[in-house]
Amino acid sequence: MQMPEPNAAVMARKSAVVEALRAALPADAVIDDDTETRAYDCDALTAYACRPLAVTLPRTTEEVAAVLRICHAEGVPVIPRGSGTGLAGGALPTADSVVLGVARMNQVLETDYADRVIRVQTGRTNLSVTGAVEADGFFYAPDPSSQLACAIAGNIAMNSGGAHCLKYGVTTNNLLGVTIVTMAGEILEIGGPYADAAGLDLLGVICGSEGQLGVVTEATLRILPKPEGARPILLAFDSAEVAGDCVFDIIKSGVLPVAIEFMDKPIIHLTENFVGAGYPLDAEALLIVEVEGSDAEIDEALGRVKAVAARHNPMEMRESTGPEQSAAIWKGRKAAFGATGQVADYLCMDGTVPISALPKVLVGTAELAKAAGLGVANVFHAGDGNMHPLILFNANDPAELAKAEKLGADILLLCVEAGGCLTGEHGVGVEKRDLMDRQYAPEDLDAQMSVKDVFDPDWLLNPAKVFPIYASASRREGRRDAAA
Amino acid sequence: MQMPEPNAAVMARKSAVVEALRAALPADAVIDDDTETRAYDCDALTAYACRPLAVTLPRTTEEVAAVLRICHAEGVPVIPRGSGTGLAGGALPTADSVVLGVARMNQVLETDYADRVIRVQTGRTNLSVTGAVEADGFFYAPDPSSQLACAIAGNIAMNSGGAHCLKYGVTTNNLLGVTIVTMAGEILEIGGPYADAAGLDLLGVICGSEGQLGVVTEATLRILPKPEGARPILLAFDSAEVAGDCVFDIIKSGVLPVAIEFMDKPIIHLTENFVGAGYPLDAEALLIVEVEGSDAEIDEALGRVKAVAARHNPMEMRESTGPEQSAAIWKGRKAAFGATGQVADYLCMDGTVPISALPKVLVGTAELAKAAGLGVANVFHAGDGNMHPLILFNANDPAELAKAEKLGADILLLCVEAGGCLTGEHGVGVEKRDLMDRQYAPEDLDAQMSVKDVFDPDWLLNPAKVFPIYASASRREGRRDAAA
Repeated sequence: MQMPEPNAAVMARKSAVVEALRAALPADAVIDDDTETRAYDCDALTAYACRPLAVTLPRTTEEVAAVLRICHAEGVPVIPRGSGTGLAGGALPTADSVVLGVARMNQVLETDYADRVIRVQTGRTNLSVTGAVEADGFFYAPDPSSQLACAIAGNIAMNSGGAHCLKYGVTTNNLLGVTIVTMAGEILEIGGPYADAAGLDLLGVICGSEGQLGVVTEATLRILPKPEGARPILLAFDSAEVAGDCVFDIIKSGVLPVAIEFMDKPIIHLTENFVGAGYPLDAEALLIVEVEGSDAEIDEALGRVKAVAARHNPMEMRESTGPEQSAAIWKGRKAAFGATGQVADYLCMDGTVPISALPKVLVGTAELAKAAGLGVANVFHAGDGNMHPLILFNANDPAELAKAEKLGADILLLCVEAGGCLTGEHGVGVEKRDLMDRQYAPEDLDAQMSVKDVFDPDWLLNPAKVFPIYASASRREGRRDAAA
Repeated sequence: MQMPEPNAAVMARKSAVVEALRAALPADAVIDDDTETRAYDCDALTAYACRPLAVTLPRTTEEVAAVLRICHAEGVPVIPRGSGTGLAGGALPTADSVVLGVARMNQVLETDYADRVIRVQTGRTNLSVTGAVEADGFFYAPDPSSQLACAIAGNIAMNSGGAHCLKYGVTTNNLLGVTIVTMAGEILEIGGPYADAAGLDLLGVICGSEGQLGVVTEATLRILPKPEGARPILLAFDSAEVAGDCVFDIIKSGVLPVAIEFMDKPIIHLTENFVGAGYPLDAEALLIVEVEGSDAEIDEALGRVKAVAARHNPMEMRESTGPEQSAAIWKGRKAAFGATGQVADYLCMDGTVPISALPKVLVGTAELAKAAGLGVANVFHAGDGNMHPLILFNANDPAELAKAEKLGADILLLCVEAGGCLTGEHGVGVEKRDLMDRQYAPEDLDAQMSVKDVFDPDWLLNPAKVFPIYASASRREGRRDAAA
C-alpha cells in the first residue's frame, strides 16, 4: 500500500504543533504519547496501520474548528475519525498527521417528535441515536452491522446503509442537515429540519465524502415511528442463481420488504457451525425477507412474497410464527461475520450492482475465487444489490494477503463491468482508491477532485484516500505549485 | 428586477456567434429571427421577459456540447431551458445570451424492468416517461402539476416534487444517473443504474442546481411498479390550524399516505365556483389524504388515518367508495391553479417548513396578507411541509405587482424564520435569488458559489440566477480579474 512520504517540515515541527493544540484544547483532549496514539493507528481495515503525529479528541464544534485552524496554519494533514469501525481504511493515519476523533462529541442536542428529527453531535453511536428516542416509539433507520459501535460521523462519511435500507434508504435519505467545519476552520450550516433546500445542495455531496471536504460535527437526522410489528420469512433454494432471480421478482412485484438478505452455501455452513440457527444445510442459497406493519399488512405483503417465491420452486418457505422463530431466522445472518472470523481471516468487499446482475455476478465471483484458489462466502443486502463477498485467507501469509487483495479488486471490477459500482456503504478509503479510475473517466474524477479543491484547497484533509494515489498526489502538487 | 448589462462585445459579435452555431448544427436547430426568439423570452414567470441573442434546439448530447463549446469560446452566456414551465424565472434569458432548449431531445434510450430503470433524453416530458412504461405496469413517481408539459431536464434542475412525493420522494430520490455537459463542452457521466456511488456524490449537487453547473442531456430514472389501487379520503375542518395539526399527527402515527393535500377556504370557494367538485363550503380547510396498495392495505391504512383525524373533530370525513368519487375528491384540487387564474393574476410561492410549523405559518401568512391588503389562497403538499400560497393581484397595475412581490418575499422569510426554506420544488431562479442571503450566511453562499466556480469558472451558465445579484456579479468580476 503506497502512502505519501511524511512531510519532513511538519515532522520537524511536531512539538510546536502539539504545543499549539494543547494551548487551544483542554488538557485531556490532545494525545501524543507513542503508546497511546497506537490505539488510533488503524481502523477496522487492520492490514494497514501507521501511528499519527498526535490525536485530538475535542468535545465541541468550536474545539474542532480550533484544531483545524491550527493544522491548516501549520500545513499538517488531518485524519477525521468516527469510531474507527470503517472497513476501507478511511481513518488510516499518515505519520505526519493529526487524528481528529469525534468520539467524545456524543450529545443529543435536540429532539422534535412533531417534525420527526433529532439533532446530535456526530460522535454519538448509531444505535444510541435510536436509544434516545425509542422509549417514545421512534427509531433511526440506517442500521449498519457495526451499529453498536459506529459513529454517526462515520455513517455520514461513508453514506452507510444496513439490512433495512431497502425500505428506509441509506444515510443520505435520512440526513436533513449538518454543521461542518472546513480545513480552514470555517463553520458551515447546511440543510435543516425541512425537506429539500434552496440553491446548490451541498448536503448531498458532503454525505459520503469520506472526510475529504470537512469534519461534520453535528447532524439533523430523520427519525421514524416504530412499525407496529415485523415478520421474516426464510426461503431456501437449490441454486444461488435462482435465489438471485427471486430477489428481483419480489422487488418487481411491487412489495417493499424492509430487508431481503442473501446467504450462500459456504456462509450457511459457517454460521450453522457457529450458532446453530437451524438453517437447511442442503440449500445452495437462503433469502431472509422481512416485512413490517400491522398484522394485516404483514399478512398481505408476505402473501405476495410467498406467491412470487413459489414460482421459483423453493426447497422451503419458513414463515415466522412468533418472536422466537423470528430471532432464530435472523440469528445466523447476524452472526455471519463473526462466524467467518472464527475460521479464517477475511476481506469484506462491498460492490453494488443492478439487481438484475446479481445471478451473473454471483457466478462470476465463484469463478474468480476458484481461479485464485481462495474461498469466498456471500452474505449481503440483496434487495438493493449491495454485495458483500467475504474473501477467506490467512493474514499471516503475505502472499495470501496479496492474492486476496487481487481477488477483491477483480470482484469489484466485475461489479463495475456489470453496470455497478465499487462500494455501496463501506467507502473507498485506501482500499479501493486505485480502482476509482476503472469506475470513472479522467474527466469524471477531475470534476470530483475539483469539488475537493473548493473545500480543501491545500489537500490536507484525509490524504491519499478516495482518489487514485497518482491523481491526488499530482493534484496536491499542482495546488502547491499554483500557490507558490 | 435588476439584470446584468448585456456584454457589449458579445452583442457586437452576434452574427459571428450565430454563424458559428449554424456551422455546427442542423439548419433548423438555430433561431435568431426576432419574432421567433420571442417564444423563448420568458418561462412561466411571465412578469419578466427578454429576447435572447439566439435560440438553439439540439437533438443530441454531441450537439449540446458543440453549442456550449462555441459559446464558451465566444464568452456568450447560455440559458438552459426545458419546457419553459418554471415558475421562478430560471429560464429567463439575457439579451446577450444563447438559449439552449432541450425540447427536441425526447427519446427513450433504454428501458429495463428488472432493474426498474429508464434512460431518457431530458427533453422528454415528465408524463411521457410514465407513458413509455405504463402499458407494462410501471410509472415514474415525481408528478409536478405541470407534468403534461414540463421536461425531465427542468425537473432535475429544480429537483421537482409533486402531490405524490410524500411517499415516493422528489426528483433526487428517483434519479440514478445523468449525462451532463459542462460550459466548456466536456461530457461527464455521473451515477448509473445502481444504488449509491463511489467517491464524491456529484449527482446530489447537480440535482436542483438550476442550470448553474451544466446541461443535463440524458438521465437514468427509477421507475416503480404501479400500485394495485389507491383511495382518497376528504377531511373537512372548521379551522386551518387544526387541519395543520392533523397533518403532523397523521405523519407521526406512522402511516405513510401517498399524498396529503391541503386547501384553505378561499381556494375551496374558488375551485367550487370553477368545477363544482362538491366540496363543503362551510369548511375552513380541507385535507385530501390518499393511500395506495391492495384493498386490504388501503382499509388498514385509511382506518388509521380516520382514527387520527377523529381526534381533531372533523366536520366531515368523506372516504371514496369508487373511481367516480375518487375523481370528484381530486377534481377541485387539480383545478385549483386554473380556478385561481380565472379570477385574478397570482404569484405562486413555494416555501417549505417543518410540518410542526404549518399551523403557525398559515396564521402568519394570513396576517401578512391582511396587512398588505392582498388576497392569499393556500393549496399545497402538506405532508412534506411544502406550502404554495397563491398571492392574488392585478398584473396590469405595476404598484400591485410590487406589493405582491413584497408580500411574497415576506411570506418566504416567514418560512425561513420558522426553520424552513425559500423553495421546495420551484427553484430560486431570479424570483428568490435576492432572498438567498436571508437563508444562508455569507460563508454558506460562498461554499455554494465555489462549487459553481468548479463547473463554470467564467460564470457563463444561466447568469444572475440562484445567487443574490451582488454576490454573483462580484464573483464573476473576481474570476475575470483573476483570469486577466
